[in-house]
Amino acid sequence: MALIVQKFGGTSVGTVDKIKAIAEKVQKFRSAGHQIVVVVSAMSGETNRLVALADEMQARPDAAEYDTIVSTGEQVTMALLSMALKERGCDARSFTGWQLGMHTDHSHAKARIKRIDETPIRTALDAGQVAVVAGFQGITDDNRISTLGRGGSDTTAVAIAAALKADECQIYTDVDGVYTTDPRVVDSARRMETITFEEMLELASLGSKVLQIRSVEFAGKYKVPLRVLHAFEDGPGTLITVEDHNQMESPVISGIAFNRDEAKVTLLGVPDVPGVAAAILAPVGDANIEVDMVVQNVGENNTTDFTFTVHKNDYERAMELLESVRVSLNARELRGDNAICKVSVVGVGMRSHAGVASTMFKTLASESINIQMISTSEIKISVVIEEKYLELATRALHSAFDLAAV
Amino acid sequence: MALIVQKFGGTSVGTVDKIKAIAEKVQKFRSAGHQIVVVVSAMSGETNRLVALADEMQARPDAAEYDTIVSTGEQVTMALLSMALKERGCDARSFTGWQLGMHTDHSHAKARIKRIDETPIRTALDAGQVAVVAGFQGITDDNRISTLGRGGSDTTAVAIAAALKADECQIYTDVDGVYTTDPRVVDSARRMETITFEEMLELASLGSKVLQIRSVEFAGKYKVPLRVLHAFEDGPGTLITVEDHNQMESPVISGIAFNRDEAKVTLLGVPDVPGVAAAILAPVGDANIEVDMVVQNVGENNTTDFTFTVHKNDYERAMELLESVRVSLNARELRGDNAICKVSVVGVGMRSHAGVASTMFKTLASESINIQMISTSEIKISVVIEEKYLELATRALHSAFDLAAV
Repeated sequence: MALIVQKFGGTSVGTVDKIKAIAEKVQKFRSAGHQIVVVVSAMSGETNRLVALADEMQARPDAAEYDTIVSTGEQVTMALLSMALKERGCDARSFTGWQLGMHTDHSHAKARIKRIDETPIRTALDAGQVAVVAGFQGITDDNRISTLGRGGSDTTAVAIAAALKADECQIYTDVDGVYTTDPRVVDSARRMETITFEEMLELASLGSKVLQIRSVEFAGKYKVPLRVLHAFEDGPGTLITVEDHNQMESPVISGIAFNRDEAKVTLLGVPDVPGVAAAILAPVGDANIEVDMVVQNVGENNTTDFTFTVHKNDYERAMELLESVRVSLNARELRGDNAICKVSVVGVGMRSHAGVASTMFKTLASESINIQMISTSEIKISVVIEEKYLELATRALHSAFDLAAV
Repeated sequence: MALIVQKFGGTSVGTVDKIKAIAEKVQKFRSAGHQIVVVVSAMSGETNRLVALADEMQARPDAAEYDTIVSTGEQVTMALLSMALKERGCDARSFTGWQLGMHTDHSHAKARIKRIDETPIRTALDAGQVAVVAGFQGITDDNRISTLGRGGSDTTAVAIAAALKADECQIYTDVDGVYTTDPRVVDSARRMETITFEEMLELASLGSKVLQIRSVEFAGKYKVPLRVLHAFEDGPGTLITVEDHNQMESPVISGIAFNRDEAKVTLLGVPDVPGVAAAILAPVGDANIEVDMVVQNVGENNTTDFTFTVHKNDYERAMELLESVRVSLNARELRGDNAICKVSVVGVGMRSHAGVASTMFKTLASESINIQMISTSEIKISVVIEEKYLELATRALHSAFDLAAV
């Protein structure tokens, strides 16, 4: 008998029939003798409907009132699922954020969890009930409803699993696990049995949008075993866990991620003096434009070349800002390119294996793909290349690192 | 400066634009220096949408989960109205049932209020905020959401007004007050300046569907001055209050009510023995059919005639039940009639004035309207007549009692 936290997202509970199907799945786990906490999102479309109402009412919606409105979506789903469980003869009880004691700070719309009362959910579980919890929401210490921000239901699930020391936190999605790369790009992409938290973080931030990054960090911090599964198909999914030091030989590389949403901005011939990086990036940050990769190279005549990437949506604005920076810094030239992509190889095995970078660069060279930028972390190497080579590069790397093999 | 509780129903907050219009109205009262508590219902249609979802999930919806779902309707409205007020520069704060401390018993879907914490709302009012309250909902002592039943928002408003000792409780509706009778039937029907709680109770129960009966009882019990007003038109409305003994001459009759939703069932020639009334009405009650008027007359040969009225919707079922009762009691004949109506004259002045009944009966006789049943209370006389005479009888009585005069 295990204690399992299960989370179902908006599309998994998007209709009455889907909620009934989820109830059937939950009941199976319960009937197998497990204690079950289910965390649910709002029915798909519902949060957008509520946000639209709030937006019509106030130019800049009051954050506390906004949270009061959008939190009703999850409140409805949790009660509907409890009903569906009871209709099947499976006792259940629903909990809003305030009912279960999900205490957060006052940062409405992006609140952070401070502590969780164990008692309400424990009492329900001990009484043999399935505890059905509204994801995404909490309560502040002045008794107002808060929300954790979009995708916060994953965080709710992990936080509850951590608080209750659950045996596993299962995140049900519309994919059956985490793949070595996107199966739509590489036919031989393989579902991974396990992956480490660190690898998952790098893969998530690089575009494998299976899990909310914040919930993975949370799970890693509290060592909550996290499993990604398909909501409506059977299968073991992918277990995200701490690095397994007992495993004799972990694969060097776990997966290949890519991102086509970035654009590149380059200032050439910038005077190479202290503070120049800040002078370039400060106005970009002030304009709320997020910068991803940053590369600075030595140039000639005491100048340097400075390149960074931003989201394609921010490209035009970044170029405008940089033109005035170019003038004020007396840099030689501003160049931009929004037909690029980023491809990354990720793997904890990289730490103990040399030669990953050289294999990557050789593989791309053999396909005549020019590398425009390189950035590395302890368990990841990312390159920026022309966008048209994305599929070719991903397939070549997937094959070079032998990821299709079990 | 007064403390005023204002209640707006579902149609008054049915759209974003209407909520904004309500905000403007509330702000005017606030700007005049009054302290304001606003109680709101769900946007019209919303409660039905939520009920339909719940009904799809469970054959007999779990009452606590059901309340959890339907209460979200008011939660959304209150936050939207708070936003609309803030957008106008009028500070506001919303309160769900649990946030304001509206404690109820465990009778989900028809919960009764046990007590109200004064502090949360007082604190908001003292801080200069408009307190915007979700009607219809409360919290049980095991921390679950309860609802007061349909129309419960009126009760919420009156209960809060009583708890805070408000100067007035204003119920905004789609009519501009309580009339001497239905203006669609009698052109000269007149809006009353004031009416007593007792009269309002008799008028409400007889079909003037302006206010929830329960809220009028509540207001009468706690002597909360209650005013009915139009949500989107200016005007003084009608004040419902305790009997004004200072008024030199209150009108004998205040209003004429009618009801076309009843049907009549008669058992003729029932053996006149003790317990026969119970034998007739028990199976009707067991079948959850509500009985309104009951009349028993002395018959001949130790038999009696027994007549009662039920809602037209229950007529067929009542006739079926009574046929088996007729057989078991060995009564002579069963008769039914669903082409009847009930017309009532109501007025506290009746207590001290003789002759009201005779004026009523003479008036009907002069129009050749036959009276089929008569029932009286201290401040009301009701008659059952043929349905086709409803308008004629109402107009004749309205004129006979001189109700068009101020």
